[in-house]
Amino acid sequence: MNISVLNGPNLNLLGTREPDIYGRRTLPQIESLCRERASALGVTLGWSQTNHEGEFVGLIQALAGSAEGALVNAAAFTHTSIAVRDALLAVRVPFVEVHLSNIFAREPERRHSLLADLAVGVVSGFGADSYLLGLEAIVRHLRTRG
Amino acid sequence: MNISVLNGPNLNLLGTREPDIYGRRTLPQIESLCRERASALGVTLGWSQTNHEGEFVGLIQALAGSAEGALVNAAAFTHTSIAVRDALLAVRVPFVEVHLSNIFAREPERRHSLLADLAVGVVSGFGADSYLLGLEAIVRHLRTRG
Amino acid sequence: MNISVLNGPNLNLLGTREPDIYGRRTLPQIESLCRERASALGVTLGWSQTNHEGEFVGLIQALAGSAEGALVNAAAFTHTSIAVRDALLAVRVPFVEVHLSNIFAREPERRHSLLADLAVGVVSGFGADSYLLGLEAIVRHLRTRG
Amino acid sequence: MNISVLNGPNLNLLGTREPDIYGRRTLPQIESLCRERASALGVTLGWSQTNHEGEFVGLIQALAGSAEGALVNAAAFTHTSIAVRDALLAVRVPFVEVHLSNIFAREPERRHSLLADLAVGVVSGFGADSYLLGLEAIVRHLRTRG
Amino acid sequence: MNISVLNGPNLNLLGTREPDIYGRRTLPQIESLCRERASALGVTLGWSQTNHEGEFVGLIQALAGSAEGALVNAAAFTHTSIAVRDALLAVRVPFVEVHLSNIFAREPERRHSLLADLAVGVVSGFGADSYLLGLEAIVRHLRTRG
Amino acid sequence: MNISVLNGPNLNLLGTREPDIYGRRTLPQIESLCRERASALGVTLGWSQTNHEGEFVGLIQALAGSAEGALVNAAAFTHTSIAVRDALLAVRVPFVEVHLSNIFAREPERRHSLLADLAVGVVSGFGADSYLLGLEAIVRHLRTRG
Amino acid sequence: MNISVLNGPNLNLLGTREPDIYGRRTLPQIESLCRERASALGVTLGWSQTNHEGEFVGLIQALAGSAEGALVNAAAFTHTSIAVRDALLAVRVPFVEVHLSNIFAREPERRHSLLADLAVGVVSGFGADSYLLGLEAIVRHLRTRG
Amino acid sequence: MNISVLNGPNLNLLGTREPDIYGRRTLPQIESLCRERASALGVTLGWSQTNHEGEFVGLIQALAGSAEGALVNAAAFTHTSIAVRDALLAVRVPFVEVHLSNIFAREPERRHSLLADLAVGVVSGFGADSYLLGLEAIVRHLRTRG
Amino acid sequence: MNISVLNGPNLNLLGTREPDIYGRRTLPQIESLCRERASALGVTLGWSQTNHEGEFVGLIQALAGSAEGALVNAAAFTHTSIAVRDALLAVRVPFVEVHLSNIFAREPERRHSLLADLAVGVVSGFGADSYLLGLEAIVRHLRTRG
Amino acid sequence: MNISVLNGPNLNLLGTREPDIYGRRTLPQIESLCRERASALGVTLGWSQTNHEGEFVGLIQALAGSAEGALVNAAAFTHTSIAVRDALLAVRVPFVEVHLSNIFAREPERRHSLLADLAVGVVSGFGADSYLLGLEAIVRHLRTRG
Amino acid sequence: MNISVLNGPNLNLLGTREPDIYGRRTLPQIESLCRERASALGVTLGWSQTNHEGEFVGLIQALAGSAEGALVNAAAFTHTSIAVRDALLAVRVPFVEVHLSNIFAREPERRHSLLADLAVGVVSGFGADSYLLGLEAIVRHLRTRG
Amino acid sequence: MNISVLNGPNLNLLGTREPDIYGRRTLPQIESLCRERASALGVTLGWSQTNHEGEFVGLIQALAGSAEGALVNAAAFTHTSIAVRDALLAVRVPFVEVHLSNIFAREPERRHSLLADLAVGVVSGFGADSYLLGLEAIVRHLRTRG
Repeated sequence: MNISVLNGPNLNLLGTREPDIYGRRTLPQIESLCRERASALGVTLGWSQTNHEGEFVGLIQALAGSAEGALVNAAAFTHTSIAVRDALLAVRVPFVEVHLSNIFAREPERRHSLLADLAVGVVSGFGADSYLLGLEAIVRHLRTRG
Repeated sequence: MNISVLNGPNLNLLGTREPDIYGRRTLPQIESLCRERASALGVTLGWSQTNHEGEFVGLIQALAGSAEGALVNAAAFTHTSIAVRDALLAVRVPFVEVHLSNIFAREPERRHSLLADLAVGVVSGFGADSYLLGLEAIVRHLRTRG
Repeated sequence: MNISVLNGPNLNLLGTREPDIYGRRTLPQIESLCRERASALGVTLGWSQTNHEGEFVGLIQALAGSAEGALVNAAAFTHTSIAVRDALLAVRVPFVEVHLSNIFAREPERRHSLLADLAVGVVSGFGADSYLLGLEAIVRHLRTRG
Repeated sequence: MNISVLNGPNLNLLGTREPDIYGRRTLPQIESLCRERASALGVTLGWSQTNHEGEFVGLIQALAGSAEGALVNAAAFTHTSIAVRDALLAVRVPFVEVHLSNIFAREPERRHSLLADLAVGVVSGFGADSYLLGLEAIVRHLRTRG
Repeated sequence: MNISVLNGPNLNLLGTREPDIYGRRTLPQIESLCRERASALGVTLGWSQTNHEGEFVGLIQALAGSAEGALVNAAAFTHTSIAVRDALLAVRVPFVEVHLSNIFAREPERRHSLLADLAVGVVSGFGADSYLLGLEAIVRHLRTRG
Repeated sequence: MNISVLNGPNLNLLGTREPDIYGRRTLPQIESLCRERASALGVTLGWSQTNHEGEFVGLIQALAGSAEGALVNAAAFTHTSIAVRDALLAVRVPFVEVHLSNIFAREPERRHSLLADLAVGVVSGFGADSYLLGLEAIVRHLRTRG
Repeated sequence: MNISVLNGPNLNLLGTREPDIYGRRTLPQIESLCRERASALGVTLGWSQTNHEGEFVGLIQALAGSAEGALVNAAAFTHTSIAVRDALLAVRVPFVEVHLSNIFAREPERRHSLLADLAVGVVSGFGADSYLLGLEAIVRHLRTRG
Repeated sequence: MNISVLNGPNLNLLGTREPDIYGRRTLPQIESLCRERASALGVTLGWSQTNHEGEFVGLIQALAGSAEGALVNAAAFTHTSIAVRDALLAVRVPFVEVHLSNIFAREPERRHSLLADLAVGVVSGFGADSYLLGLEAIVRHLRTRG
Repeated sequence: MNISVLNGPNLNLLGTREPDIYGRRTLPQIESLCRERASALGVTLGWSQTNHEGEFVGLIQALAGSAEGALVNAAAFTHTSIAVRDALLAVRVPFVEVHLSNIFAREPERRHSLLADLAVGVVSGFGADSYLLGLEAIVRHLRTRG
Repeated sequence: MNISVLNGPNLNLLGTREPDIYGRRTLPQIESLCRERASALGVTLGWSQTNHEGEFVGLIQALAGSAEGALVNAAAFTHTSIAVRDALLAVRVPFVEVHLSNIFAREPERRHSLLADLAVGVVSGFGADSYLLGLEAIVRHLRTRG
Repeated sequence: MNISVLNGPNLNLLGTREPDIYGRRTLPQIESLCRERASALGVTLGWSQTNHEGEFVGLIQALAGSAEGALVNAAAFTHTSIAVRDALLAVRVPFVEVHLSNIFAREPERRHSLLADLAVGVVSGFGADSYLLGLEAIVRHLRTRG
Repeated sequence: MNISVLNGPNLNLLGTREPDIYGRRTLPQIESLCRERASALGVTLGWSQTNHEGEFVGLIQALAGSAEGALVNAAAFTHTSIAVRDALLAVRVPFVEVHLSNIFAREPERRHSLLADLAVGVVSGFGADSYLLGLEAIVRHLRTRG
């Protein structure tokens, strides 16, 4: 079982970017934690990050046929990109939306997600643990559904 | 470490209540799954359910001094009760907000939570798994914070 | 055929409460009129009133298996209680929403009902007659549907 | 005692028009049921239908001096016609607003009535029974008020 | 110089319709006052009233070529009819909007006019005098503009 | 195959009405162009225009059984008439909504259509060509669907 | 009979201030026209202008006991000053609100008046004629009411 | 003269609950201060607190016949409970609304009171002094009105 | 200890201005009551009233260095003047906002205060007693804070 | 005459992407149909598709000097991209906006176009036919304008 | 070339007023800096400050004929005064709007300017430098335009 | 000291793009003016332009460690890109927001900036001078802060 993890704009700065909000772990450190957990769960992991909306759309389109499920942290695109929404509508691969920070405790414009109603579910607010919990959630969802 | 799980109105009907949305597991079945997981995590579990807002407020007030953390599924009170919000503000026990269904994919009035900005984080949409993931999240939060 | 009549907060004050709006009949007098009409229609009648939201939720939950239909005058809960809405969604017993006053001719916050879209229909504005007409409506609905 | 029943636009299509929403009875069939009930109640019945707002205004103006009360199903005019509202304000004949469908369970633009605050009360959602219940309501209202 | 006076729905009821708001003069009495004043001003007067939006549109279309100016009291159509607005836009005959009552002191929905920005000006609140002042205004406007 | 073309209020003024917006062709000239194109497409054409909402409703009701499809330019009724919407809902004849002007480049109140979500599609902004393109569209729609 | 005319901020610039909107007559010229008309109507005229809100409030307070009626052109204060509204509420002298320009054809913020619901009526859009018509209106109002 | 003091949800936590906002006095301490002041004013004092909306409604209903006036600190119910409002409307006992914190300096949802327009007046922001000032205010109101 | 009382526009009319709302006491009578109470509390009192916003701003600026606290009844400026707010922000003298009438029971535009979040607290609805209670409140606030 | 067809994000998935909404034709198949029609109309056709906003902006900038007109299906960018709007404002090449689906019958966020008021006109709802009709429209527009 | 600098309410308090927001320079110090820069630019400088709206309006009216351009820091009037806007509309002297603080980073009510669309441009956020930059901007604007 | 100037989408078209709004200078000409001024101020200048949001995000990320300050003209991204905002939040390099046109005098959607509250300040409306003034402002800000 392949699970793809897609990371949106500015997540390449994790560790230095507003650490009070996003934590001090870098994206490669989170990737390592995820790979470790994926291995324990018996699944293989795809991993990518981009600051470009068009590339993010392409990454989603590429899920079709290559992954059974996905973790999506679309960062700022979560709130502004109908193109990303359209791509998720088109490929219909099951995914879990994850956020490092608790988006409900932040500015109003970060509380509306253009993607979440398409997701299996949402995990928000647990720092790097959001990824690990989301990974467990998508794997359990796919296994119980299969 | 004691973790208290608080369940709000109509959750006593789980299993028969709109199973397409809330799943077919009953609340006692979810409790059993949680107790099993709590045991594996090495924590003890409090469990309660009520249809009464005043009792729910009392259950939250009772957290002070008796639990290190909580899972809160306030159901309908999530969207209407400032009294519940005030109780959470008063006791300041760390909690995770959980929902069985993906509240982002439902009616607009279910998308606004009066409690979520007070939570450590939110887990929504994975049926009974929301409780298990939330349990893991609050335990990890308390252990890494301690 | 059993029909249950559920009365919400402050309806115990009928007769003395703002009689220009709600009329001068007391709740027991309305109950008598309803029992008389129920008898003429050949149905038995349950009757209850509470000021407590949690009890109102419990009364609705208890409809399942004990009544074929209901008259619901949720009073103030009509406009504020998602818990009452959730209970009605859960038990799915057919009901008619009744109001003594014409809620359309009152303050804006009384014009929005959180329950009415779940009802078979609504009868509003005829004082005690609203109950009698509602009773006739629910009985005819159940008989023609049966 | 004369009661006039006024029917607005497209009600001439009843029976074929969206039968899942409006039922399968034609307008002449509903008229027959009403005449039968009127006879039982000891009142005479006026009956009219028009697709023209100006004619509908004229029918209301003609109520003055010719009817003691009215049933008004203004259909689409309920939501758009201040002219109809003004005519009802001018003649001040007591009336009951009736709707075949439960307007509270439909699209938002059908939930606002420009007329209902002028009515004695509202009966909505019982198909042809809305007319029969409304007829009973207006007759009782006129008799107890007289 | 020909001036046409167009009266909208329910104005045929003046004198009996809500006299506290609209005054006790009938429409024929207002017409007489206007004809007297028109004669003093040396202009001829057209006069019409209709409850039908389509006829009102037709009366406006007929202004082209037959009148130099108009008084328009569109009554309820003032607030609801884009068709009336379109007709006024099409014929571009100068007109004054008149109202018997002070629309600024009434319900919110009567404070928005779909026509007033097309008018030379507005006279509102002086009962029958609104017509006489409006007549003087349109005549002076046409003479000083000519 | 019969196609009916329905024209709403003030379209009888085309050619003289705000020609910068609506163009200089008269409605009979547009009718001729349409008949020519209809002939080329092998369909017969019905044609009507009215300023009366009630008549427009009647024209739509008459489509049932007499036409396979329609072009609808409801003009001002597009934005204000739920009665017209109800008629289109009732007869369910496939239609294309056409506009001479580009309604997206005009005032905000002209950008909302009460009818467009019921249409097969919309053609807006090409003057008389909107009719010709709409005619081609409805014919192709009916032929490929048949 | 004394009538007081109160002019608000920037009206001292009339004649040079945006003449396309406000006309080319100066305020002293308008005063002369008004005095001439007042004389013909047999009333005496008070006249004042100020750019200071506090002075405008004082001028209104001074109406009590010194004038039977007033013309009020509060200019910008019309839209922003609750103090002016309170002064008019306090003295309760009948007044007519006048505007040189047609406020309905201007920017949205000029369409809302904080004063108009307190006025006998409103005259708007006729340049200096607005004052003359307003003067006639207030005198007729006071004479027919007396 | 009897004055009843009604305290809403979470006020039992005073002293420990967010002391920067609500102060460090406990509810029993505030009760003592009030009893002392009541004694000085020559009135007897009722005192109660509940977290249950239904009980709060009952406490208000019980005012009729047992108290001449009341102090009401409905806490969270201030903003959410139409049932509490209805009870106050029903018993019509004069009351003063009091708040420990300055609700105008807090979150927007705490600035709207469903009760305040029914009160004699409001005292907000002075900690325990709000109760003492409110007590003085209701006693003076009742004595000067008597 | 010096306390300054600042009164805004139209308060010079008290006693004659809308006595049903504002009471029948004149401003000098209220001043006498306040001086008497100030004397009992052992503080000296400054007193001023103005209809001019600029003077009101100046009075607030003058508080710095001359008064330990203030009572502010800004009347209409409460709802419209950011300049008054800025002056209060600049001098930062503790003040209590007082209103004669219960602003919560009045028109919506009087329910929003631009000043209240800067105040220690608010006293509203007790007529002249609002001043006396406010005086006691500010003195107690300053003494317990000192 | 050169006409350029610009296709926005996710249109590369046509045929597999939500075929109930967008149809079963692939983008290359639509391109073939367009080329065929272009050939019949005697014009040459440019064709491009991109998921990148920046590239879409570049494609529009490149229209200047290389195409007389354009068909624009900006897909998701239609609703979110002011950069695309700015590019169209800058090059001022006449274009027709086309949509495969009837955007008026879809979710609210798809009903607002940031581009349509700049277009000659809009064709929406006819699947691949939207392109063919749009092509005919732009060619006729350019030829009759030339 | 004469440039006039107009300063609104509470700017006389600069240096002591909220120095974290407005800086520690006094208004006379800013005036000195401006005079120095004006001298370097070869222009003469007018300077004034007032807390009175009416005086501010008068200062603007006086610009006509006495200054080629202006710097306007209307402070609180920026957000509330249509009278100031009308004065600027009337005299049409080119001006630059300046703010000491970055109004975009402050409360929402400070983000809307009633004046800025009339300005040549806006400089906001640089403390005293905002004046110096604004002075340079208006001089360059006048010289390149001349 | 290094200052980086970042230019957003469509600014490469300056000189030909809507010259009435944006002026006739090309972007290279503005760059020359800026380099000249930078040289006079003794700072070095970085310069870039892109139509791609992802590249713009990358340019901002690259500021960290390579520039002491920035001028940012994000053009259309100003109003739509949370990704750009997030990048500015992450690198926290001081910047000045500049606009060629006066955004306050343009369409409403151009008046809201997602970036301005993060800026030191804003300069808007002076064409190429906005860059020169902004450059001076950022240099003075950095030097006085250092």
